[in-house]
This record gives sequence, structure tokens and C-alpha cells, in this order.
Amino acid sequence: MSSELVFHLVKAEDLRRFAVSVFKFIGSNDADANLASDVLLKADMRGIDSHGVARLSGYIRLWEKGRINPKPNIKIVRQTASTATIDGDAGLGLVVAPYAMDIAIEKAKNCGTGWAAVGNSNHFGIAGYHAMKALEFDMIGYALTNASPLVAPTFSKERMLGTNPICYAIPAGKYEPVVIDMATSAAANGKLEIAQRKNKPVPEGWIQTKDGGITTDANGLKLGGALLPLGSDKERGSHKGYGLGAMVDIFSGVLSGANFGPWVPPFVSFLDVQPNLPGKGLGHFLGAMQVDGFSEVDVFKTNMDLWIERFKNAVPIDKSQPVIIPGEPEANFEKIRLVEGIPLIDAVVQDLKQLAVNFKLDHPF
Amino acid sequence: MSSELVFHLVKAEDLRRFAVSVFKFIGSNDADANLASDVLLKADMRGIDSHGVARLSGYIRLWEKGRINPKPNIKIVRQTASTATIDGDAGLGLVVAPYAMDIAIEKAKNCGTGWAAVGNSNHFGIAGYHAMKALEFDMIGYALTNASPLVAPTFSKERMLGTNPICYAIPAGKYEPVVIDMATSAAANGKLEIAQRKNKPVPEGWIQTKDGGITTDANGLKLGGALLPLGSDKERGSHKGYGLGAMVDIFSGVLSGANFGPWVPPFVSFLDVQPNLPGKGLGHFLGAMQVDGFSEVDVFKTNMDLWIERFKNAVPIDKSQPVIIPGEPEANFEKIRLVEGIPLIDAVVQDLKQLAVNFKLDHPF
Repeated sequence: MSSELVFHLVKAEDLRRFAVSVFKFIGSNDADANLASDVLLKADMRGIDSHGVARLSGYIRLWEKGRINPKPNIKIVRQTASTATIDGDAGLGLVVAPYAMDIAIEKAKNCGTGWAAVGNSNHFGIAGYHAMKALEFDMIGYALTNASPLVAPTFSKERMLGTNPICYAIPAGKYEPVVIDMATSAAANGKLEIAQRKNKPVPEGWIQTKDGGITTDANGLKLGGALLPLGSDKERGSHKGYGLGAMVDIFSGVLSGANFGPWVPPFVSFLDVQPNLPGKGLGHFLGAMQVDGFSEVDVFKTNMDLWIERFKNAVPIDKSQPVIIPGEPEANFEKIRLVEGIPLIDAVVQDLKQLAVNFKLDHPF
Repeated sequence: MSSELVFHLVKAEDLRRFAVSVFKFIGSNDADANLASDVLLKADMRGIDSHGVARLSGYIRLWEKGRINPKPNIKIVRQTASTATIDGDAGLGLVVAPYAMDIAIEKAKNCGTGWAAVGNSNHFGIAGYHAMKALEFDMIGYALTNASPLVAPTFSKERMLGTNPICYAIPAGKYEPVVIDMATSAAANGKLEIAQRKNKPVPEGWIQTKDGGITTDANGLKLGGALLPLGSDKERGSHKGYGLGAMVDIFSGVLSGANFGPWVPPFVSFLDVQPNLPGKGLGHFLGAMQVDGFSEVDVFKTNMDLWIERFKNAVPIDKSQPVIIPGEPEANFEKIRLVEGIPLIDAVVQDLKQLAVNFKLDHPF
């Protein structure tokens, strides 16, 4: 077993405390440091390991490059009763997006729905965190973000779109909410990284070579290739994945005044931001819809429970693998990790330890 | 060449006049007959032949079965400033959906966005027609509908979801609007029908057998199989296509009080509606967002033009096949067919002729 595949179990609270100390070190105030840590921990708790504390040092490197403002003056630059455009002042997306989602929720309280286009921001962690904020108000939550270009549109060999996720969080009654949180590429970059670590090939349809050819090499992206849109190839509907990624890019980037397409600033700090950008930072699009704006809440929740039961009981191909409700695996991870702690691979632990050493911070590792 | 592949060129105006006469025959008033015909013709004009007049006799057979009310009393049953729930009174979706979209647009004029969940309706034609109504008001349009169950969720062999389309219509400046109009299945049923007619196999990943196995038989669906969600299989992200189809079903069915999942009434009249349904008819979800609610309209359109130019010029894999902007092929079809007429296959012409004979109507064929 390679040392990378050794897992360290760390309690969520310990990890959170450490993350808070790191964000405070770079200049975030208490509230922002707690909020940003919450977003990262939510990813770790829900089993989306690629978007949790594994990314902490990535955010810090962006701050070191001067690309993240730890004391942002986040403000509404335009609004109507149900819409707002928000300038994130180059803050952490982990802080800017929850602020914007709060505004969407307030607007939804007043007129049924609320929508926020957010520009001049940075990566916001998992989309699910932001969309799920709506749930406690019996609202449906919606979250999109554009991201560093890694995905080639159908027929192109150029990286033009991020993995541009879409998330819907929908309340239910006795069951866990339905949470659809998905990249619009065939596979998220995190899955590619796992295959790279294990030195395994990836399925056909995840990536293409730099010439647009078929490959199963997990390192294909590093060799100049691109991720493929959901659908993988034209025959199987990759133009749909491309269309969805395009929508996310337009809503998050063009509507908000952020960058879009190949101009979205890279997440990795070793790549420089291009000159002559059409916008500021990257963008998100967040929304909240009152269930009560459309239906009695109780009726809706009862019917959501019926929906969930019926889909859970759809005839399986293999009896040992029932149909999964979107969000169900993540909710199960949350229950388990709350008790057992969060398993971090050795590479992440070493990375976080180094951060602690550099910044002279206490750490739980 | 089989007789089915003989094309008859018919002028849009002649086809429209005929469709109007058919809808009037079943009892639609003038305005509704014109509106329903408009929706069908828009599909034919845009090259989405499966959703145009080819379906006219399908709607009529539903009327003959008493499942379509030609004189619906469409009404708002619940609303807030930005939301409405609409009961379509079992009317033609071709009429109910534009009515609901008008309400969404009015609400968007007043508070930035407007959203309508529509229940007790029938099939609404192409989603694009409804979403594109927003464009003339410098709004982004949104349209979803659930539909007869044909798609199996990941891990299931049961047909649980329709091809549940998603459409976004986004205004641009000097270019055609970006119109993303896509089924959430790997392939729309219309494509399967074309392969059946040509007696050709379909690509792996479009359908599965009744046991959930892999097949390339274009008749696989008729043999008890199911369409596959966008992504085709779990490895390539079919859970994402399933998630999107689920969202469309919940927004269109559960929010509106329509049926959902496997309870959505079949489009084909020879299948009976199931007893003990959880809702009424099928459902749609429509939305309109003022661009001006987020951005100066001119700035947005200029940036959309930049977006479109940049994506059109993304480096192609093969120089003879440039990247396509969503909606571009359909806009090109509209220009050509406006001049040349609409090519109908012989089977459709014979079907429409029979309708004319049965109803003693003039016809252009």
C-alpha cells in the first residue's frame, strides 16, 4: 500500500478548529474564518474529499499570490425585489457565496424567490453547502459556479469551461432532502486525481488527449488533454453536458460581471491570471424558492416522501444495488463521519502539517 | 429507398392553417387553435421534427380518449409576487404552457423574475418555444416538463422518468440567442424512431434491455427496455442525467400538484392512465428572469456576443467541424425552412391526410 493510501482519522471539530486558525492567520475575521471552515468541513463530512480541507492550502497559496482578499467588502451592486448582483471584492468564495445565499433567501421570504449573481469571487467549495442553506426555511436551494477551464466543448480540443457544477437542494418530509450536486463534466477532477494516485486507467469518456483523441490515461489532463462534458461524446449527448456547462458559465460569469469561459482565473496559484480579462474573478449563481410559493408545504413534503419511496423501490437490475436517491450517499457519510471522524490521506495530512509549521499554528495531526 | 424516407416539402403557412383547422375541429377557440399550431410549427421550423405536426394526430387521439379538454379554464391557484401555481384544467400543454409563461413574464416585469409551476396539463411540444418567449423582453427563459416514463434511473430496469427536457433561452446581441434545449436522457425518443425506420442499430448507451443489459437494438424500448439517462452508465455519470431528470420531475410534478415519476400519464392513447394517481395530468415548470435585474442589458449582450465568438472559435479537433453554439443548428433550420418549406416524411403526410379525411377538413398535401 502506498503511503498516500494510509488514512488518518481526524475529528471534524479538530479539523474545523485548525481551519479556523488558518483563515484567521491570513486575516479573516472570526465570523468569516468560521464560515469558510464550515464550508470546507461540510465537504469532508459529506464524503466529497476533494473539496474539503484537502484544498485548504490551495486557498492559502492564492492568498499568498494576492488573489484572495481576506477582508472583503462584499456588496450588492444592483437589485430588484427578487434579484441581486453581488460583488465579492475578491474574497474567499467560501465566504462570499454564503453571504449571497443569505440575500437570496431574504428576497425569497419577501417575494417567493430570490436569485443572486455573484462576481469578483473565488472558488466556493461544494455547491451543496450553499444550496442546502435554503432547506431550513422550507425552500428549494440552487447553486452554480464557474471554475478554471478544464473541459472541452463537443468538437473542440481546447479547455473552455470549468467542471461548472449544478446543485439543487429540495426539502422532503421524513426522509433526507434530495440534493443533486453534480459537475457538468463526465467526471469531476477529484475522481481523476484518485485514479492518478492509484496509478489506474480511467474509463473511456472522461478525458481526451491534447489532440482530441480517446484516452484512458489518468494523466491525460496533465499531458495537455481536457475533461469531457457529461455525455462523453457527441453520439451519447456530450453537447448536452457542454450546454449545461455553458449555462452555468453564462449565469455565473456573464450575468454577474465575473470572467467566463477560458478567462476564468485558474484555481492553482502557479498559473498566472491572464491579462485583459473581460470580468472580475470568477462567479456564482445562487437561488432560493419558497416551497410555499407553489404548494402547501406539508402536501409537498408528503409527496416528496412518496417520490423518494417510489424511486428507492424502483426495480433494481441487481438486487444487491438498489436505486440511490440523489444526496443519499452524502447524507450517510455525514452520519458516519460525525461519529468516526474524517479519514484524511497521508498527503493531505502532511500538507496541512506543513501549513501549521509555516504559520506556527497548533494542529491536531 | 423506403417510402418513409420520401420527403414532401410543405410551406409552414399551409401546415399552420391545417393544424389550426384540426384544433378548431376538436373545439379549441380561435386563439388557442392558433397558439397550439404555433408551438407545433416552431418545432418543425427548428428541425425538431419529432415534436411538430408529426405529433398532431397523437394529441387528437388523446382528445378522442377524453384526456384533453379543448376548452380549458386555466387558472392561477396559488401565487406570490414572483411565483404562481397554475391548473391547466387538462388543456393542451401547447396552450397551457404559453399561458403560464406569460404569467411568469409579467411577474418578472414586476419583481425581476417570475416562475410558474403548472399542473393538470398535457404534453407541451418543444420546451424551446416556451423558454424563447422570454427573449423579446430581454429576459432569460426557462422551461421544464415531465413526461411519460421511458427512462430508467441508474441501477434500475424500471421506466421511472420521462425524457424530461430542460431549456434555457438566453438573449445575445448581434448573434442568435443561446438556446439550450435538451432531453435529460442520453438520446431523445425521436432519435430512436429514426434508427428504427432506417433499421439501423443505435449507439451503446442510449437504451438498455428489459433486464438492464447493454443493447444496440433500436427496438430495445419496444421490447420492454428503457432509455438511459444522460451519461449512459454509472461510470460515465448516468447518475447525473438521472439527477437532472429527477429535478425536472419534482419541479414539474411535485411542486405543481401534477403526477410524477412512473405515474405521469402516457402520451400514447392506447395506454390507459393508471388508477389512484397522486396528482393531476402532467406538469411543467416555467421561468423568466429579467437580464436587467442583474446587469445593464447592453453590457450583458456585448459580453454574450464575446462569449459566443470565443466559443465558436475554440480550437476544433477537426477543422471541418467547428464548435457549435447551443441553438445555432435550430436557428439555421428556421432560416432555411422559412424559404424552402418543411420536409415531412411520407408516413407523417399520410397520417395528416387521414386526419383531414376523418374530420372532413381541407388539407395542403
